[in-house]
Amino acid sequence: MNSSTVTGPGDDCAVLDLDVPGSWLLLKTDTVVEGIHFLKDADTERVGHKALGRCLSDIAAMAGTPVAALITLGLPEDFVPARIKLLYTGIDALASRYDVAVVGGETVRCAKQLFVSVSVLGKVDPAKCIKRSGALPGDAIFVTGELGGSINGKHLDFEPRLTEAQWLTANFRIHSMIDLSDGLAGDLRHLLRPDNLGAELIDDAIPISAAARAAARSNPNARPPLQAALTDGEDFELLFTLAPEDAVALSDSWKKRFPKLPLHIIGRIINKPGIKMRSRRGVKDYNEKGYTHFA
Amino acid sequence: MNSSTVTGPGDDCAVLDLDVPGSWLLLKTDTVVEGIHFLKDADTERVGHKALGRCLSDIAAMAGTPVAALITLGLPEDFVPARIKLLYTGIDALASRYDVAVVGGETVRCAKQLFVSVSVLGKVDPAKCIKRSGALPGDAIFVTGELGGSINGKHLDFEPRLTEAQWLTANFRIHSMIDLSDGLAGDLRHLLRPDNLGAELIDDAIPISAAARAAARSNPNARPPLQAALTDGEDFELLFTLAPEDAVALSDSWKKRFPKLPLHIIGRIINKPGIKMRSRRGVKDYNEKGYTHFA
Repeated sequence: MNSSTVTGPGDDCAVLDLDVPGSWLLLKTDTVVEGIHFLKDADTERVGHKALGRCLSDIAAMAGTPVAALITLGLPEDFVPARIKLLYTGIDALASRYDVAVVGGETVRCAKQLFVSVSVLGKVDPAKCIKRSGALPGDAIFVTGELGGSINGKHLDFEPRLTEAQWLTANFRIHSMIDLSDGLAGDLRHLLRPDNLGAELIDDAIPISAAARAAARSNPNARPPLQAALTDGEDFELLFTLAPEDAVALSDSWKKRFPKLPLHIIGRIINKPGIKMRSRRGVKDYNEKGYTHFA
Repeated sequence: MNSSTVTGPGDDCAVLDLDVPGSWLLLKTDTVVEGIHFLKDADTERVGHKALGRCLSDIAAMAGTPVAALITLGLPEDFVPARIKLLYTGIDALASRYDVAVVGGETVRCAKQLFVSVSVLGKVDPAKCIKRSGALPGDAIFVTGELGGSINGKHLDFEPRLTEAQWLTANFRIHSMIDLSDGLAGDLRHLLRPDNLGAELIDDAIPISAAARAAARSNPNARPPLQAALTDGEDFELLFTLAPEDAVALSDSWKKRFPKLPLHIIGRIINKPGIKMRSRRGVKDYNEKGYTHFA
């Protein structure tokens, strides 16, 4: 850390103050790896999209604007050179959409599997920057989109919620925000505090994606769709909190501004630790592993 | 590229203008790979030093100041976890010396060999930023340190010439600069233009390191020391040009400011393409491959 560091590791991005008038700088690096973040036969353009998109989703989570990106490709020996161009087709299309300059990078031959490592520089108005910390007891908890089943395709095609996050922070006083990469329940914990800040979710309110429902229908051994929505990774939606008195106004404005993207209130912040789940049968403690017993 | 981009790929760093008063931003990413940039049995701390040092050397080449770094470690399956701490010992010691904040990073398991990928954000006074382009016919060509034989140890321990580069640009009008990573002759070409800007080097003036001389002595099949100084990679010294009328003043001031680090005038920029080598026997065209015939 040095005198420029506002926030080091531990939030969606690092935050730096370099005396840019009206801006802090954001830095983020992230790597996608074949066999972990995509399958070997995944469409190469979509892999490029995903690699940059994950970093842009982190910039969005702090309500920032991406500016420039550096790309490092790790190529296994059997990688067909023509696919490099396809990776960049996916990267460049997304970069162009959000006016991100791809200003450098390199290719290394040391990979067992293809990997794409991306570093992004962004900026954010210090008065509008939303951190993970900042949730208050009573806050309404919102989530964009529908959750679960991303593995069936969305994880390669998701749109980073940059426009939505910037609109949110321009028009409402958002208290805390994170992008969903590891699953709703797990990522929600990053907005809480182990000593005295928890959340109560309403099971009926959690938006379940069609993909999560389809997966449950097609496989009798699959987890229930609600469980998938709570724990599946890579939704890349925004999870955020704001004062309850602002919740109705936000919902109304959102429908006009983003009519195609659902926004749901899924619960509230409470002054007790942990996550609780409210259903018609009452309120019970929730944890990711134990939820199948509860449902 | 976007409206923030001053210089994209092709110089030592990308240069961005984000309206920081008195500063452009610099971005650089670089990866070191086991078996390519260091041997499997190399001291782990020194590998960490080298990984960050290479990026800092690129920041130095533009006379910039590094601010923050992101680190991605690619670990092979047999990598001993305790070595991660040693990598960071090397990284952190160098970062601390130049007040660089290590603000994020991650670890991925997809490597055949260990790799360390580093991205660095820096800043530079636009009036003091030195690009590769900018050399003029007649310029004196200077190089810091002594060249060749880096493979025998220096490549893991070199000090990025940040202090020296900042002093140079604060006190003299440097026309062009690059750091030596691929060998003097090859990197010099980046300061030239294929149509009408070349260089004439003086063979006796090229500083040959003790390591390069020792390598030649110990192995009768080794390249001559001068050839090593011209073509060995990873010297991480500064190569720069300035007007000939400033050359003596610079040499004098340098000796007072940096008495332990040699600085040599090795030739001049000419208005004909290519590199020529002047020796007691006259002037001949030089190219890296043909030089053994010339010597």
